[in-house]
Amino acid sequence: MTDVSIIGIGQTRVAEHWDLTMRDLAAQAAHAALDNAGIEQIDALYVSNMLAGELSRQEHVSALAADAAGMSGIEAIRIEAADASGGAALRQAYLAVASGVVEFAMVLGVESMTDLMGNRRTAALSTSLDADFEAMQGATPAAMAALMMRRYMHETGTTLDDFAGFSVNAHSNGGRNPNAMYRNRLKPERFASAPPVATPVNLFDAAPEGDGAAALILTRTERARDLVPNPIRIAGSAVASDRFALHDRSDPLTLSAVVGSASKAYMQAGINPQDIDVFELHDSFTIMAALALEASGFAERGQGYTLAREEEIGLGGRIPVQTFGGLKARGHAGGATGVYQVVEIIQQLRAEAGENQVANARVGMAQNIGGIGSTAVTHIFERVD
Amino acid sequence: MTDVSIIGIGQTRVAEHWDLTMRDLAAQAAHAALDNAGIEQIDALYVSNMLAGELSRQEHVSALAADAAGMSGIEAIRIEAADASGGAALRQAYLAVASGVVEFAMVLGVESMTDLMGNRRTAALSTSLDADFEAMQGATPAAMAALMMRRYMHETGTTLDDFAGFSVNAHSNGGRNPNAMYRNRLKPERFASAPPVATPVNLFDAAPEGDGAAALILTRTERARDLVPNPIRIAGSAVASDRFALHDRSDPLTLSAVVGSASKAYMQAGINPQDIDVFELHDSFTIMAALALEASGFAERGQGYTLAREEEIGLGGRIPVQTFGGLKARGHAGGATGVYQVVEIIQQLRAEAGENQVANARVGMAQNIGGIGSTAVTHIFERVD
Repeated sequence: MTDVSIIGIGQTRVAEHWDLTMRDLAAQAAHAALDNAGIEQIDALYVSNMLAGELSRQEHVSALAADAAGMSGIEAIRIEAADASGGAALRQAYLAVASGVVEFAMVLGVESMTDLMGNRRTAALSTSLDADFEAMQGATPAAMAALMMRRYMHETGTTLDDFAGFSVNAHSNGGRNPNAMYRNRLKPERFASAPPVATPVNLFDAAPEGDGAAALILTRTERARDLVPNPIRIAGSAVASDRFALHDRSDPLTLSAVVGSASKAYMQAGINPQDIDVFELHDSFTIMAALALEASGFAERGQGYTLAREEEIGLGGRIPVQTFGGLKARGHAGGATGVYQVVEIIQQLRAEAGENQVANARVGMAQNIGGIGSTAVTHIFERVD
Repeated sequence: MTDVSIIGIGQTRVAEHWDLTMRDLAAQAAHAALDNAGIEQIDALYVSNMLAGELSRQEHVSALAADAAGMSGIEAIRIEAADASGGAALRQAYLAVASGVVEFAMVLGVESMTDLMGNRRTAALSTSLDADFEAMQGATPAAMAALMMRRYMHETGTTLDDFAGFSVNAHSNGGRNPNAMYRNRLKPERFASAPPVATPVNLFDAAPEGDGAAALILTRTERARDLVPNPIRIAGSAVASDRFALHDRSDPLTLSAVVGSASKAYMQAGINPQDIDVFELHDSFTIMAALALEASGFAERGQGYTLAREEEIGLGGRIPVQTFGGLKARGHAGGATGVYQVVEIIQQLRAEAGENQVANARVGMAQNIGGIGSTAVTHIFERVD
């Protein structure tokens, strides 16, 4: 199998972009990635988008994004796996380059979340759940996260305050990221008293949705060395699924898709969790951050919340997470989120993370989760030296 | 690059399946394909679905289908490129197996079209067009096809009767296909007087939408030879795009995405159009059949309609098309359509097509078009001897 590396990254700010359409966002991120890689064209485009059909009455975003970026004619496909779409699209681009068929592939995540607001957006987001047995009953992603969090609290004896550290860390790092949606600091003592979303999940616990686009360019590592000074190779790549509905899972507090994809990625990379220097995890809700840390091997079952402290997950901690703000502060741009995660890991491994740099970061991991855990995608990256 | 073959096929009937959900349809086709290949499990699932978000309020169909088929845990991704989703998903499965990373891949196309009816379904289908500049103005796929057909008639001096042969051929072959949605014969003299849909497109000109699921199993050709007596290798595989909106195309009667994907597929397979023994084309409207024949090299520009006669496109004709009824009579099952096309080509190349058999078929082509030509996917298949 051909070794594959990332040679270009691009992103827009995550925000309520009232003045930019999905076309504009896609074109900006695509051109930024081409410029960053120093190339002018690609062979195949993998567009990740979660909800344009519901949000903007626009499916077929692959051909739309190719056209918007001035690349009409090329191979263009859309990948969707709810909010794991970005990671899933990277997986497809990776396989395409690894096959030897595609020389230069672009992953382009784009989402215009603010095309719908309020309850209508929430209903759209709920299409990532089981329509017949969850959403039909009024369940939303936040409501499902609340069920999991309440169960977790019941089993572990934790309270909302025990999760504050995840959001505090996110906002601390997001404050130094010019592309972040929210750059304000969060006081730990304010966390538990935020307005409720779906009790116990509250406003400071749930990631905000924003518009944005992010892009990556991949090619063979052999070729990459000649093109850029700092290619970052994909050392591990894996996708796994879980029972679709939460009520069908034998243990609702074990994210089996995360266990599956992380263990495959570790095996492919030939490493263990303790070898990871920086980890962009899927903190759509703080409970998801805790459960992802457990399922990825950084904590025992029921102990993930103990990592929610600066000495554990801060930039100088044992396992830095949300280093540019995570979903919570950088913002959750739906199908683009998984691409943002990888852009940030590449910045870390290139030592281009500025004030957010994790010292001596050489091995990074990005993990993108769809819905409340039905799909998980894990990628591991290493510097090419 | 690793050579890839198809070793299993499965399908449900295309119909208004009021008694079967998307889960049921997906599970039936998946199990049929596993049985056909004589294997019990796969490594990765590529789900093609066009519109479940709009039709059934269900995105994230990849994990849902994996679960429904009893395969939860495995790698599962959804591919979407409007009604070219099926072909696009095969492309991804092909690349995954070609990379050497995935040993057994399943392509599973599924669509529950009848979850919405009438104008609401038409509005959903129109999300494959440009939402801002086409659908927003009231354009539907049929309306866009009508624009192209009217222009074609103007340039070539043809009338509606000149296109009748495509629908007559489709119904003639569909009548012998137990999985077809419509099995009635169509009298040529009745064609032009059918009720209008979007003049000049009428009811006998436009493919009907139905529910259905179809599946394929792929593995390395080397491995395939040991598993089944009749593997069919993928000799060519290509995706291309065109300007997204019709009004941006320099020639609205040249399907550039078809030209691009067909020429790449021919080049990879090392053949010319005259080497193709059977061709499943995307006859969503008769004008699309005529234009696809032209863009694929079977007729000059403006001459595709001349092939709409039994001696040209019938089972014993020069280039047999719609051999199991095509979209027009087998039925158009959205994101599953491209998978049905390939299932039918495999039946032909295995010499398992029964009454619909094209004699001595050794090389087949399937071509799946998204929207009104913004995406096209072309695959060429050959018997492994």
